[in-house]
Amino acid sequence: MTPEEFRTIGHRLVDWIADYRARVAQYPVMSQVEPGQIKAKLPKAPPDGPESFDAIFKDLDEIVVPGLSHWQSPRFFGYFPSNGMLSSVLGDYLSTGLGVLGLSWQSSPALSELEEVATDWLRQMLGLSDAWSGVIQDTASTSSLVALICAREKASGYSLAKGGLQGVKRPLVVYVSQMSHSSVEKAALLAGFGREHVRAIPTDAAYGMRPDLLAEAVRQDAAQGLHPCAVVGTTGTTTTTAMDPIGALADIAAAHKLWLHVDAAMAGSAMILPECRRFWEGIEGADSLIVNPHKWLGAAFDCTCYYVKDAEHLVRVLSTNPSYLQSSVDSRVKNLRDWGIPLGRRFRALKLWCLIREQGVAKLQARLRRDIENARWLEAQVKSAAGWKVLAPVPLQTLCVRHEPDGLAGEALDRHTQAWAERINRSGAAYLTPAQLDGRWMVRVSIGSLLTEREHVAALWDVMRREAEGTVR
Amino acid sequence: MTPEEFRTIGHRLVDWIADYRARVAQYPVMSQVEPGQIKAKLPKAPPDGPESFDAIFKDLDEIVVPGLSHWQSPRFFGYFPSNGMLSSVLGDYLSTGLGVLGLSWQSSPALSELEEVATDWLRQMLGLSDAWSGVIQDTASTSSLVALICAREKASGYSLAKGGLQGVKRPLVVYVSQMSHSSVEKAALLAGFGREHVRAIPTDAAYGMRPDLLAEAVRQDAAQGLHPCAVVGTTGTTTTTAMDPIGALADIAAAHKLWLHVDAAMAGSAMILPECRRFWEGIEGADSLIVNPHKWLGAAFDCTCYYVKDAEHLVRVLSTNPSYLQSSVDSRVKNLRDWGIPLGRRFRALKLWCLIREQGVAKLQARLRRDIENARWLEAQVKSAAGWKVLAPVPLQTLCVRHEPDGLAGEALDRHTQAWAERINRSGAAYLTPAQLDGRWMVRVSIGSLLTEREHVAALWDVMRREAEGTVR
Repeated sequence: MTPEEFRTIGHRLVDWIADYRARVAQYPVMSQVEPGQIKAKLPKAPPDGPESFDAIFKDLDEIVVPGLSHWQSPRFFGYFPSNGMLSSVLGDYLSTGLGVLGLSWQSSPALSELEEVATDWLRQMLGLSDAWSGVIQDTASTSSLVALICAREKASGYSLAKGGLQGVKRPLVVYVSQMSHSSVEKAALLAGFGREHVRAIPTDAAYGMRPDLLAEAVRQDAAQGLHPCAVVGTTGTTTTTAMDPIGALADIAAAHKLWLHVDAAMAGSAMILPECRRFWEGIEGADSLIVNPHKWLGAAFDCTCYYVKDAEHLVRVLSTNPSYLQSSVDSRVKNLRDWGIPLGRRFRALKLWCLIREQGVAKLQARLRRDIENARWLEAQVKSAAGWKVLAPVPLQTLCVRHEPDGLAGEALDRHTQAWAERINRSGAAYLTPAQLDGRWMVRVSIGSLLTEREHVAALWDVMRREAEGTVR
Repeated sequence: MTPEEFRTIGHRLVDWIADYRARVAQYPVMSQVEPGQIKAKLPKAPPDGPESFDAIFKDLDEIVVPGLSHWQSPRFFGYFPSNGMLSSVLGDYLSTGLGVLGLSWQSSPALSELEEVATDWLRQMLGLSDAWSGVIQDTASTSSLVALICAREKASGYSLAKGGLQGVKRPLVVYVSQMSHSSVEKAALLAGFGREHVRAIPTDAAYGMRPDLLAEAVRQDAAQGLHPCAVVGTTGTTTTTAMDPIGALADIAAAHKLWLHVDAAMAGSAMILPECRRFWEGIEGADSLIVNPHKWLGAAFDCTCYYVKDAEHLVRVLSTNPSYLQSSVDSRVKNLRDWGIPLGRRFRALKLWCLIREQGVAKLQARLRRDIENARWLEAQVKSAAGWKVLAPVPLQTLCVRHEPDGLAGEALDRHTQAWAERINRSGAAYLTPAQLDGRWMVRVSIGSLLTEREHVAALWDVMRREAEGTVR
C-alpha cells in the first residue's frame, strides 16, 4: 500500500471510527452472536491475490461489529472501564504509523525519552515522590510477574545467575490476599514459586487484607524454615474495589524484608484526585507498584505504568546485553529493553502523552469525580430500595449489589442473581459482570466509561429493577 | 475529544503519517540526537489545562521526528526489518479505534474468533500441518518465556500446582545454542531454571547447533542426576540467520522427552516460500514455535504468532478462572486469556488480517523473494571485492561482512570495523548493526525493509566501500 492509498483509505477509516464512536450507544452492549458464528462467516484459507479495503469495510460492518461487545458504550458497566479516549487513540495512531522500535535508546531516542517524561508526568499526577522511576508495560498481569521475579531475585541473592529457584535452600513464599486479582497468583505460579508457597491472607469485613494475619503467616513460615519473600497489596480489588492497608503492609514488609508490590491497576487512576490518596496511604513504603492508565484514566489499551524504587535492581534482573544491541552511548542512557520482559517496544508513550496534553490534568480529575458521584448516587438508590443490598463499601466507582427477594436464599438466590444479570446482558441494554462474593453470586456495576452520564446510570437502575423484580412479582 | 474533533484531527494525522512515509527516505536513518536532548526540550510537569493538537503536531515535527531512527526507511539495514506495511497499520488503527478487549470470548467474540482465523491463515501460509493451534503474543521474548514455562511444567508434572521449581527433586536443564537470541537465556532465567541449568551448545561452521553435542550434553546431564527438560532451536539466528537442524533436534527431543521450541522469529516469514521450507525441515516434530509477522512479513508491531501442538497443556499451565471472568458459553469457546501471560488483549488479529487480505499471499511472497535476490546480489559484490569478506552463509537476507585491509588484525581490525560502521550510522546515509562473531566485530547488513530496492542496496555498497576503504588508503 502506498502512502497515497493510505491517505485515501485512512481518511475513510477515521470517518468509520468516528461514526462508530458517535453511534456506539445504539448497539446492544454485549454481542448477541453464538460461539463459532463469526468464524463460520470468514474464509478458511488466505487469499492468494489482493483484496480491496471495500471488501474489508464490508466485512467489518457485517461480520465484525455484530461480534463485538462495545466497551466504549455509555451502557458498559462490565469488568472495568477500558477507556480509549480519542486523543489517546490518535497518539497510538502516531505510534503505529511511525513504525519505530525501541530495542535500545539508539534505535529511537525519542521513544525512550518520551516514555521517561510521560511516566514521570503520571508519577507527579499520582502524588508519588521522585524516588520512583516508571516504565510502560503491557498489562498488570505481566507487571505482577516482573515484580514477583524481582522479589524472588532480591530474596535469593540473584539465584538466576546461579541455580535458579532450583538451587534455593529455603523455599520462598509469596503473600497475597483472598481478594487479589487472579493474575497475581498466576504470576507467582509462572515465576516458579509453586502454589504451596503462595498464601492467600484472609480479609476483613471491608475485604481488605488483614495485616495481623499477614504478620502471623510470615512468622509461622519463617519459624518453619521457609523464606518469606514478597507481599502483594491491592489498592482497589477487582471484585469490590477494596483497599488493602498499604501502610500496615509496608511496616510488615520492612520488618521482615519482604518485597511489597502494590497492584493499583484500576484504582490507581483515582490517585490523581488528592482526596483519594488516603486509599493508598503508606505507598512510599512499597518497592514496586502499577497503575493502568488504560483503564479508567483513558489511555488506549495497552498501557500499564510500572514504577519501581530500585531501578538498578530491576535492570540487573532483566538486562541482556548481546553485542548487536550495544552502542557507544549505553552508559549515558536508559535502555528500556532492560525494564521488562519483551525486547521489542512500541512507541507507547505517545498515547499517554497525547491523552494528558489534550485533556489536561484538571479535566481528567473532573471526569473521575463525575464517575464517583454517579456511583454514590446509585449506591443511595440501591440502599433505599426494598429487597436490594449493596454488599461492600463503595470507595470509588464499583458497586456490588444483590436483589434479595423475600424467601430466596442460597442456590436459589444465586440462580435468581445470575438470571437477571444474564437477561440484562443478553438484552443488550447494559453490560454487567456477575461475580462471587463470600461464596454467593452478586452483580458488579462498574461505572466510569467515558460516555457514561447520570442518565445512563439512572436508566441502568430502571433496567435492573425491571429485570430483577419483574421475575419474582 | 468528541468523534467530530477526532474526525478532523484524525484526517490531519493520517495526512501527517502519509507525508512521513512518503518522505521517510529523506531523513538521516539513525537519529542524530545526543542522550538527554529530547527530554530537555519537553516540559517537566504535565499541563493542568487542555492543549491543542496544533501544539502536539508542532512538537512532533520539531522534537520527536528528529529523535527517531527511521525503521521504515529504504536505507534501514539494522537489526531486522520491522515492516509496518500501511495496510497493517490501518488494521491496527481499527483495533485501537474500536477499543474492545478480549478478556474472554464473551467480552468480544469477534476478537477471539478472528484471531483464530488469522493465525490459521498464517499457519497454512507457512506450510504447517493442522496439528498446530495459533495465538498472537506481543514478542518472541515473551513467547520464549511461555514456551519454557510450558516445558518446565510438562517435565515437572505441573510443579506449579505443588511446590513449584522449589519442590523439584532433579533440577531441570534447558539447552540453547551459542547463537540463540539473548531473550532465550533471559526467558530461562526468568522462568527460574538458573544459569547453571542452561547449556549453550556449540555450533558448527555454519553457526547451526551441533546435534551430536546436544545429545552428548543431554546424556551427561541425565547421568549426573539432572533432568533434561527443553531445547530451543533457532530457524534464522539473529547474528547470521543460521539454521539449526530442526529434524535432528526433534529426534533427540523425542528420544529424551525434551520439549522442542523453535524460535523462527525472523526467518519464519520466509516459510511462506515453499523453496525455503527446507530450512526448518522436521518442524512438525517441535512442540511450540514462533514466527514474528511484525518483522519481515509486514505486520505492524507487535504481532508474534505462537503455535503449539498441545493446546490443552498450554491452557492448563496458563489458565485462571475467577468468577468474574466466567460465562455460560465457556465450554464451547477458546478463552485466549489462557493462552498467554496478559489477561487483557487488544484486537491484534485485525492488523494481520488486513495485511494478508490487502496484499494476498502471492505479493507477500514476491516481496520476500525480491529481498533474497538483493541479498544474493550484495553477497556477490562483497565476495568479489578485494579485502572484503562474507563471514557466514547467506540463506536469506542478512549478510555478515568485514573489510579486512592488509596488515589489520585483532583489535586493530575491530576498531576499523566499528569505526566505519559508526561513520555510516552517524552520517545518516544508512543504518547497519555491528555485532560480534567468533569474538571479533563484523557488520550485519539486514535487507528487507518494505521500500528497499536494488538501488538502495547498491548505494549502500558504495557507501560501505567509501567509508571502509577510504580510511586505509
